[in-house]
Amino acid sequence: MSAQCSEGLPAIDVRSLVASFDGEQLLADLDALGAIGWKPGAGLQRLAYGDADLEARRWVLTQMQALGMQAWIDPAGNVIGHLPGSEPLPALAIGSHTDSVPGGGKFDGALGVLAGLACVRTLRSQDVQLRHPLLLIDFAAEEATTSASPTGSLSFVGGLTQTALDGPSWDGRSTVALLTDHGFNIAAMIANRPPMPIAAFLELHIEQGDRLASAGVPIGIVEGIVGIRRYYVHFQGQANHAGTTDMKRRRDALVMAAPFILAVREAAMTHGIVGTVGRIEVHPNTPNVIPGRVMLDVEIRGLDDAVLDRVEAILAVEAARCGGTLHPGHRKEPVLADPKLMEAIERGCEALGLRTMRMPSGAGHDAMNLAAICPYAMLFAPSEQGVSHAPDEWTQPHDCINAARALLAAVLEVDAMPDV
Amino acid sequence: MSAQCSEGLPAIDVRSLVASFDGEQLLADLDALGAIGWKPGAGLQRLAYGDADLEARRWVLTQMQALGMQAWIDPAGNVIGHLPGSEPLPALAIGSHTDSVPGGGKFDGALGVLAGLACVRTLRSQDVQLRHPLLLIDFAAEEATTSASPTGSLSFVGGLTQTALDGPSWDGRSTVALLTDHGFNIAAMIANRPPMPIAAFLELHIEQGDRLASAGVPIGIVEGIVGIRRYYVHFQGQANHAGTTDMKRRRDALVMAAPFILAVREAAMTHGIVGTVGRIEVHPNTPNVIPGRVMLDVEIRGLDDAVLDRVEAILAVEAARCGGTLHPGHRKEPVLADPKLMEAIERGCEALGLRTMRMPSGAGHDAMNLAAICPYAMLFAPSEQGVSHAPDEWTQPHDCINAARALLAAVLEVDAMPDV
Repeated sequence: MSAQCSEGLPAIDVRSLVASFDGEQLLADLDALGAIGWKPGAGLQRLAYGDADLEARRWVLTQMQALGMQAWIDPAGNVIGHLPGSEPLPALAIGSHTDSVPGGGKFDGALGVLAGLACVRTLRSQDVQLRHPLLLIDFAAEEATTSASPTGSLSFVGGLTQTALDGPSWDGRSTVALLTDHGFNIAAMIANRPPMPIAAFLELHIEQGDRLASAGVPIGIVEGIVGIRRYYVHFQGQANHAGTTDMKRRRDALVMAAPFILAVREAAMTHGIVGTVGRIEVHPNTPNVIPGRVMLDVEIRGLDDAVLDRVEAILAVEAARCGGTLHPGHRKEPVLADPKLMEAIERGCEALGLRTMRMPSGAGHDAMNLAAICPYAMLFAPSEQGVSHAPDEWTQPHDCINAARALLAAVLEVDAMPDV
Repeated sequence: MSAQCSEGLPAIDVRSLVASFDGEQLLADLDALGAIGWKPGAGLQRLAYGDADLEARRWVLTQMQALGMQAWIDPAGNVIGHLPGSEPLPALAIGSHTDSVPGGGKFDGALGVLAGLACVRTLRSQDVQLRHPLLLIDFAAEEATTSASPTGSLSFVGGLTQTALDGPSWDGRSTVALLTDHGFNIAAMIANRPPMPIAAFLELHIEQGDRLASAGVPIGIVEGIVGIRRYYVHFQGQANHAGTTDMKRRRDALVMAAPFILAVREAAMTHGIVGTVGRIEVHPNTPNVIPGRVMLDVEIRGLDDAVLDRVEAILAVEAARCGGTLHPGHRKEPVLADPKLMEAIERGCEALGLRTMRMPSGAGHDAMNLAAICPYAMLFAPSEQGVSHAPDEWTQPHDCINAARALLAAVLEVDAMPDV
């Protein structure tokens, strides 16, 4: 099915345009960008605003310019390429990020940016102009390596604060110090805004889970970015000599915490969300002393606030039942994707014969910040074995190409929507 | 009942001699010794072979000499006082230690040494000579602050090895370096032996548990020092993104380990021993990453090797059931007290009208090393709340005095035994 069929507008035929997509060039770009900051044995080291990250983003800028885009770097370090549209409409924005975690892989973020370049390359090679202006954005500092992450997209939508920048960054100093050293103007970053009105944002990213790979489905349609709630749970027992203290008279904080760890898993599974005790701190943590105090961090993630409320209530009861106390920590609300944009992506994929699957995004993305100024939707490409944030993160070459073709089809579908 | 009644030998009347015991002087000694190395807010800091420890042991030497004992410091730093006996018999040895853990209390070890001084003071003041020579020993470096602990008693019985000394000490350097810096001759420490044959060793120590205090019984009779078995248990899961990885596809090493922690407690309680998971190490231990690997240390302690074997077998099965593997670590065999010496202590206490209770010692003591060369028995004094190895470690003044009087009565009883 083409955009023309589905919406009845005179538009570009999706299948014929996508047929001219140059998959080999996309794979070559993944190799070229993936070599910047790659350390053998240590994976990708493109930490936000570090030398390799800046080099990678200058490379992206050059590619945009070579494709004839008007391209620039905004006050937050976001690399922005612009293609004019044929009508006086707000822009369609696509993109993702190219910074990495320490020891990351070549696909997280990068695939979305390079797929955007591939879309522009196809449009340019076929001399196709969209109705809407197109913005391709390589957002700066998406990964949680600075205190303000995702920093670039937050600045782009006007949401960056001084407080967020005052926290620590990956290099041990404050994010402000890291930025100032690289010549960034903090006031300009805070005052930053989108260069033009934006009608919709589409982001392609790797799944970072294994649902697509294990189901053999090439494209995930993100229903929303999950809400995250973190809790600190405190179990106060009594440290004592592990040899001389009777079992019956012990208050072993680790024995108190163990059933709670199992209760978190049970509550998450029962409610169809994810729940994790990822960190535990035991005092004094010595073989011959009964644990006197345990602190642990729980997080739950889900798309539905009501479900998260229910699980939170269960965890508070379970913590108390185990003799502990649950304290709320960090909290991020779920950010739902736009249903019409999701359907547009599905139409595009259908036109290309690509199967899709709806799913939540368990991880945060730049799209979550863009949601403050426009509707958004996301496409996921399969992650082999669900591995991400690791050097052996891998998306099959044909999956990279299919995902980029799906992004192009989705852009064409959205461009054809009369109310966008 | 007196020693004379019980054994039918012409001996010293226990009750009349103990009646002259100077309890106030014992309390004054506890205060005087407890001031050496005491840091307000940080408790007792008499770490083995450190300045405060050496000062405390020179103080003990002076006290012995003031009581007319022949007293010296042996190659391991043990302070030894000698009173001749009236018959050509092997010696009775009594004593304990005066070094402390970092942030220890005033009673652990010190009570046994000062009670020994009080016994000698009573014998001297009443001009009573025992049949056996008496050795009062303040053993060096009993606490686990050196790699060879209990170092002084190990050297005393000829059991010290170079290998044991090559390990680390509390000050970060090797035990050899710590000793050499303080002028100790390593070869002489290894060649060290008891200065004369020893017929029996009696050690008074605080319980370090709360069985006596909670039962209101003033004297514990130690049946033996428990065997200790440590195990490393390894749970290998798979680290992954806590947001993007489905609950069903997780291999969360902490979720694997939690039921094992509970199984350790269950197995110990069922078998009447103690079992503890005191240390746990989680990788990567980050709130948003599923734990990929957990290592934990289990120890079990008990007097009966057959019971320890049974619990070890259960723990291996439980670890496997939870997806982990159990690896044996450090192991110390149980060291049983001598039944005749235990009865002698009980007779002495009965003569003084002091209730006793038999119990295992969950902690190691110098007596465990002395067992290599002679029969031993131990008396325990109550620890309030079971607190030990802490600044607020406390034994009531009347309990200190009763325990020291019981030690004196036990010495008289043992001295009267025809086959010792």
